[in-house]
Parts: sequence; C-alpha cells; structure tokens
Amino acid sequence: MNIQIAVSKTNKYATSESGDTLEVIERPNGGVSVVLADGQTSGRGAKAVSILVVRKVISLLADGVRDGAAARAASDYLFTERKGKVSATLNILSIDLVTNTLVITRNNPAPVILARKGKLDCLASESTPLGTNRNIRPSITEMPVEAGMTLVMYTDGLVHAGERSGHQMDVCETLQALLEDEDPSPQAIADSLLNTAMRLDDNRPSDDISVVALKTTAAESDGVRRMTVSLPFSPGD
Amino acid sequence: MNIQIAVSKTNKYATSESGDTLEVIERPNGGVSVVLADGQTSGRGAKAVSILVVRKVISLLADGVRDGAAARAASDYLFTERKGKVSATLNILSIDLVTNTLVITRNNPAPVILARKGKLDCLASESTPLGTNRNIRPSITEMPVEAGMTLVMYTDGLVHAGERSGHQMDVCETLQALLEDEDPSPQAIADSLLNTAMRLDDNRPSDDISVVALKTTAAESDGVRRMTVSLPFSPGD
Repeated sequence: MNIQIAVSKTNKYATSESGDTLEVIERPNGGVSVVLADGQTSGRGAKAVSILVVRKVISLLADGVRDGAAARAASDYLFTERKGKVSATLNILSIDLVTNTLVITRNNPAPVILARKGKLDCLASESTPLGTNRNIRPSITEMPVEAGMTLVMYTDGLVHAGERSGHQMDVCETLQALLEDEDPSPQAIADSLLNTAMRLDDNRPSDDISVVALKTTAAESDGVRRMTVSLPFSPGD
Repeated sequence: MNIQIAVSKTNKYATSESGDTLEVIERPNGGVSVVLADGQTSGRGAKAVSILVVRKVISLLADGVRDGAAARAASDYLFTERKGKVSATLNILSIDLVTNTLVITRNNPAPVILARKGKLDCLASESTPLGTNRNIRPSITEMPVEAGMTLVMYTDGLVHAGERSGHQMDVCETLQALLEDEDPSPQAIADSLLNTAMRLDDNRPSDDISVVALKTTAAESDGVRRMTVSLPFSPGD
C-alpha cells in the first residue's frame, strides 16, 4: 500500500506572511504527522501564534506523546503564554505505524472530509479552537489505514473564500465532483480546492488558505519514501 | 522564481528502520531548511542517533539559531549524550529568505554537488561527522539564490552502493549525464540517483540511502507553496 499526502498553501492577498503554519514530522515509533495551525487574525501576529502552537505540538509528538495529549498541552501553553486572549485552530493528521491507524485530531470548527468507497463523510462534530480556556479538548477520530481512502482537511480560509462576493464554496460538493470525475492525485485535489477558493476571491484571497489531501492506494510500493517541496521565491520578500 | 526540493529515501535491505533521518522545517524568519542525519551503523541504534541529531538541529533552527551554530550544538550534544563513542553525519540545506541565500552546512565526508550554467562543482572540502570530539566544525557554503541552480546532497549509502560487487557509482558523472540529457525535475534526479545505487546492489541496498535534490527555476510562481509526501505502508511493519 502507498500513502500520499499533498499540501497547497497560500497567503492572504498582499501579506508576505501566512498566519497558517504547517509542518510534517516523522513519528518516533514510525509513521508521519501533519500538523496544521491557523493563528487568530492574519500577518505577523497570527504567524507567531501558529508557529508557537505547531512547534509545541511537533516537539511533543517527537517525544512520543500521543496526538490528543499534545493538542491539550499546546492549548494550555497558548492559554498561559497569551493569557487566554488569543486562539488558534489546530489539526493533526497522523499515520501511526504502531497501531496501523489514521488518527485525526481536530481543534477546528472547519470539518475534515473523509471519502471511502465513493461515500463522503464529514467529520464535523463541534470542535473548539485552542487557547481560550483551560478545558479545551480535541475531537479525535481513529480508523485503520485501508486502501482507497481520501481525506481532506483545511483552514477556515477555504470556507470563507467568496464571502465578499456572496459566493462561497461548498467544499463537500466540490470534492465530490472532483472524485467522481477521475482518480485525482492528492496534489490535484489540494490544488483544485485552493484554486476554486482563490477564484471566488478574484485571486486575491481574503485569508490565508491551507489545504491538505491524503490518499491511500493499493498499488504495490517500491519501498522508497519521497517528499517534494515547492517554494515561491521573490528576493526581497 | 521557484525553488523545488525533492527527497528519495530507502532503507538498508531487510531492515524496517532507516538509520537516516530527514526533516524539512520552516525557518522562523522565512524560508525552509532540510536537515539530514545518518547515524553510525544501521537499524534501531542508528535511527536513535540520527533522530537525536535532527531533533536538536530543528529545535535550534526553530528558535532562530544560525545553521552553523546549530550543527556545533548538535555535535556537542551527541558527544555529551554518547560520551564521544557514536558519530553521525549531518547536512543542512537552507533557503534563507532574510539573506536570500542558499546555505549548505556539511558535517559529512560525502560531498554536496552544485550545478550552475552546465558546470558541476563538488563541495568536498574535508568535513568531519558529529559527536566524536569537542571541536567539530561544520563546513559552510553560502551563495545568493539564483535561477538555474541544481544542488544534490546525500548520505554515504549512495557512495557505498555497489561495493559488494566492486562496481561503485561516480555520482558526479551520473548527475552530469542526467543534466545533459534533458531538464529533469528534482524528483527525477533524486529517484534516478537512488535507482542507480539500488541496481548496483541488486535492489538490496547494503546501507540506508537518502538523496536530496534542489532546483531553482526562473518560471514565474503562482504564489502557492506545495508539499507532497509519499510513504510506503505495509501493515505490521
């Protein structure tokens, strides 16, 4: 089996720094975790908050702490650091090779969408962002890794795109159409959702947007682990 | 301009854990760093060492510490933890958006290869692995980011491939042929070098192998940052 994860990420129009932070980290007992946080507001202040949350989570995961405990710890840490005045959303998506499961940890009102056997499930149970009080709990979903799963998670920039013009995107509907069409790669899924959102904002996104897509395929693997990063670069940024 | 980084990574034959650890991390002031360590020997022990080194380096880089200082600190840390008895190689490849430079930090006898304007340079100054004494210094090369650069770095598994059969690869020559052929993507470069090495070992690599390729292109960027991870998965690993 092969697991592919793709990320597409853009900044709010005319800001050089994204308030979203995403890191992918190897788990100490095998597997990987994708950690995505979105700091309240945008620009430099939001970036500081989302970096603080992601750093805390990845350092705990690196020590072998379970995802849910890491999310709680990051919430308490943010609450203490910023006196409960600043919030951040957090998503952790883990492939755990000890339990052979997919673990989805959400502190984000935006849902995570899971497609299996042509059926879309919306993981949309109530979920509170981190940092605003002392009793924040993550919403956790765990399931065995099977071939043929597609999972999409995102920050709220995707949901709010098009608000200015009154034409918002129905993420589930857009994804359903994509999956019916052909067999898109995770990068094609992430790019397509991001592009749809950007078009709704006339290519001037009104918020930072990050989209993560994961796909499992039954194709036999060649045993090689691969990673690519593509980074826009303009000197003087 | 656009910067693309690709990684291909495989384990020594019949070991489930790679002694090489690689992480890509966002730099706090902009840009990314690729941190690659290879722990002495192979399997679980080597993994513990390379994880320890990479974790230390990424946590320091996340705090804004410069690459060279992070490498020295990781060396002292490994020396202290393992009483000077265990060594690890380390490579850090950074795109620094504050200075708009590419920074290559080496504590690895294996060279880093840089191609510019059809000319291959081998960054092969003497370089000592971390952890064996108190005065380890990294070898650092810094240069402005320009379009048309290709850079390849790797762990020694690539160099030692084929030793059993007496047919080792000349990495520079193989890369030169690749670059003359067409305009290969960084993933094609990394895959091609890895595949050549694996063939020399009859697809039973005698060591962990990691290859990182970076390429800068003048193509106008769409402002979207992308990342993909492809992970072999066999339940029961």
